[in-house]
Amino acid sequence: MLYQQIHLTLPTWTHDVVDLAAVHESDEAKVSLAIALSRHNVDADTGGPFGAVVFGPDHRVIAVGVNRVMPHTCSLAHAENMAYMLAQQRLQTPRLNERIAPITLATSSQPCCQCYGATVWAGINRLLIGARAEDVMELTEFDEGPLPADWVGELNRRGIAVVRDICRDDARAVLKHYGDMGGDRY
Amino acid sequence: MLYQQIHLTLPTWTHDVVDLAAVHESDEAKVSLAIALSRHNVDADTGGPFGAVVFGPDHRVIAVGVNRVMPHTCSLAHAENMAYMLAQQRLQTPRLNERIAPITLATSSQPCCQCYGATVWAGINRLLIGARAEDVMELTEFDEGPLPADWVGELNRRGIAVVRDICRDDARAVLKHYGDMGGDRY
Repeated sequence: MLYQQIHLTLPTWTHDVVDLAAVHESDEAKVSLAIALSRHNVDADTGGPFGAVVFGPDHRVIAVGVNRVMPHTCSLAHAENMAYMLAQQRLQTPRLNERIAPITLATSSQPCCQCYGATVWAGINRLLIGARAEDVMELTEFDEGPLPADWVGELNRRGIAVVRDICRDDARAVLKHYGDMGGDRY
Repeated sequence: MLYQQIHLTLPTWTHDVVDLAAVHESDEAKVSLAIALSRHNVDADTGGPFGAVVFGPDHRVIAVGVNRVMPHTCSLAHAENMAYMLAQQRLQTPRLNERIAPITLATSSQPCCQCYGATVWAGINRLLIGARAEDVMELTEFDEGPLPADWVGELNRRGIAVVRDICRDDARAVLKHYGDMGGDRY
């Protein structure tokens, strides 16, 4: 049979953790929610140690994502990709900031090569990052993959500002917990 | 409401175009099917001018993909990504060649930055490409995005062989048709 349907989901606990009415004004508040999602995902055993959140101009959540690679046997189901797809479904556009702007993506760890490419097309204005790629590789042995040498500059030239090292220690703590408990690597 | 469900589909006509029993032995036969899918997708107005196919070691189709960005308002729904996700669901693994090998991805045009990153994780051994990135940009004005300077070498070092310019003229013809008729760019 030719497969024609892809169905990806977030864990049900995300309903309890995310408050759509809450205002996350600062960069730290935005990344903290992404890190909280990454921690819940590990504790609930619903995927890898990564979380991401798409915020609108009012600093409220449009959509969230967590890593769902193993539950859905899907290498595309990284946290950032899940958040982008769900935000695009909610706003009914494949380029988020053509509907409302600015759009911000907060992620617990630097996007890998796949989510980096997705970030180029998703339609965001700001990218807020917790842990660095080297933290991910040091603490979990996840490979982050090949990026353009000037990956920040390539985003900047496409209108995407990048801010790194936001709540980096908190993000590192979740990665370390995952690594110490011997979580799946893939 | 927090969105939690992503549902992506292929057009129903793919059932009529794809024969799961057929053997596509040569590289040309594999890429020709990807190009045929890209042409059907334009003619049926079911997405952009891109097609991709995942083949198993027996040269039979595991899964196919076509561009579904506009129908699903989803910037992730590129042909290669659709094919990877559907193949991974069918084989029930997020890394295809850990189940059976070698796995081949044939694509009508060079993967953009997003599908390039996805290709690093999907678990393929061979990447067969029709049109070049410069063909896509010349004929359709689609942007292909930033890649590592040595993008072929980065794949080679991860065990993925790359063959380019397969049926390139046929692939270019579909792109030119789409460009001439003023198809969506996004």
